[in-house]
Amino acid sequence: MATVRRRGRPRGETDSRERIISAAVDEFGEHGYDGSTIRAIATRAGVDSALVHHYFGTKADLFAAAMGMPIRPDVAIPEILAGPRDEVGERVVRFVLQAFEQPEVRRRGVALMRAAIGSKLTTPVLAGFLSRELLGRIARALDTDDAALRSTLAASQIAGLLMARYVLKLPPIADAEVDELVTRIGPTVQRYLFD
Amino acid sequence: MATVRRRGRPRGETDSRERIISAAVDEFGEHGYDGSTIRAIATRAGVDSALVHHYFGTKADLFAAAMGMPIRPDVAIPEILAGPRDEVGERVVRFVLQAFEQPEVRRRGVALMRAAIGSKLTTPVLAGFLSRELLGRIARALDTDDAALRSTLAASQIAGLLMARYVLKLPPIADAEVDELVTRIGPTVQRYLFD
Repeated sequence: MATVRRRGRPRGETDSRERIISAAVDEFGEHGYDGSTIRAIATRAGVDSALVHHYFGTKADLFAAAMGMPIRPDVAIPEILAGPRDEVGERVVRFVLQAFEQPEVRRRGVALMRAAIGSKLTTPVLAGFLSRELLGRIARALDTDDAALRSTLAASQIAGLLMARYVLKLPPIADAEVDELVTRIGPTVQRYLFD
Repeated sequence: MATVRRRGRPRGETDSRERIISAAVDEFGEHGYDGSTIRAIATRAGVDSALVHHYFGTKADLFAAAMGMPIRPDVAIPEILAGPRDEVGERVVRFVLQAFEQPEVRRRGVALMRAAIGSKLTTPVLAGFLSRELLGRIARALDTDDAALRSTLAASQIAGLLMARYVLKLPPIADAEVDELVTRIGPTVQRYLFD
């Protein structure tokens, strides 16, 4: 989001957006998703909170932008929910993997996972985001009971998948085709969310 | 294993064993499970490789000792395999969680996960151990096709579970009862290994 449509913008705006993204990556990395605030990110970037909201919307949207995610949760979720309910799990896995197959998303996502897990701070970053903003919203939208545990279980599998494939680069999961992983792991996410 | 039966041992032996364990924790943390060798650990501890083998057996056994695991893979696997085949997944999840519920195992396991993932080195530690020594051996013992991918998928779920529960402490997975998690996650591991 932050990297497109730069042409013609005044120089100051580009600088501010880049400073905000950079501050967001640092802040999420140090304090985790839940421990980070728009206010702290704005302070770190040397701008006003209102400007952060103006450019990037909510904290979830800013996180998506900081990850380099091309699609925001408020756009992704309707896409994932549109279609047969018994294939929601597969669509979630495909969505996350397709995002991480993009080098810039992968680079930032791995950096954030490393920063969050390697530090002494036990705050979730990507897992918190996945659990709360992506899977939690899906579980709530589909009105399952136990939505919090269900979405956290699904997040644990997706976080484990991202870790094994992109951080640890554990063969053969690291070399598998996206379609193969969607077929194998989609039913797990489906079961956690709905069965 | 390394922490029992100390009584009556000559002082030098206790020192050597502790130096080896300490060197193993550092070495696995820096280079991952696959990237570590008995020879490098021995050098780091200032002892001969033969002494490491003599005290701790194989690399897998030394890893288990370094993790503080009370049961070695060569003991655990027959236990997991003894019993109905359609409950192997549940027994794996229960075995790993029961190990991590012990404070000393948890402390060392979390330290190793942090060290491996937080560093720039993209080598697997716990996931490599789980995948190769625990789940890989189970998959091979049960003669499934595709054993490598199957055991890695199962390891990704177990690594994600350990990460969510013990490193990120993501509620409500962090507060759930072991039995609840065995019921929810056991079938996933079962499906990855056999279906």
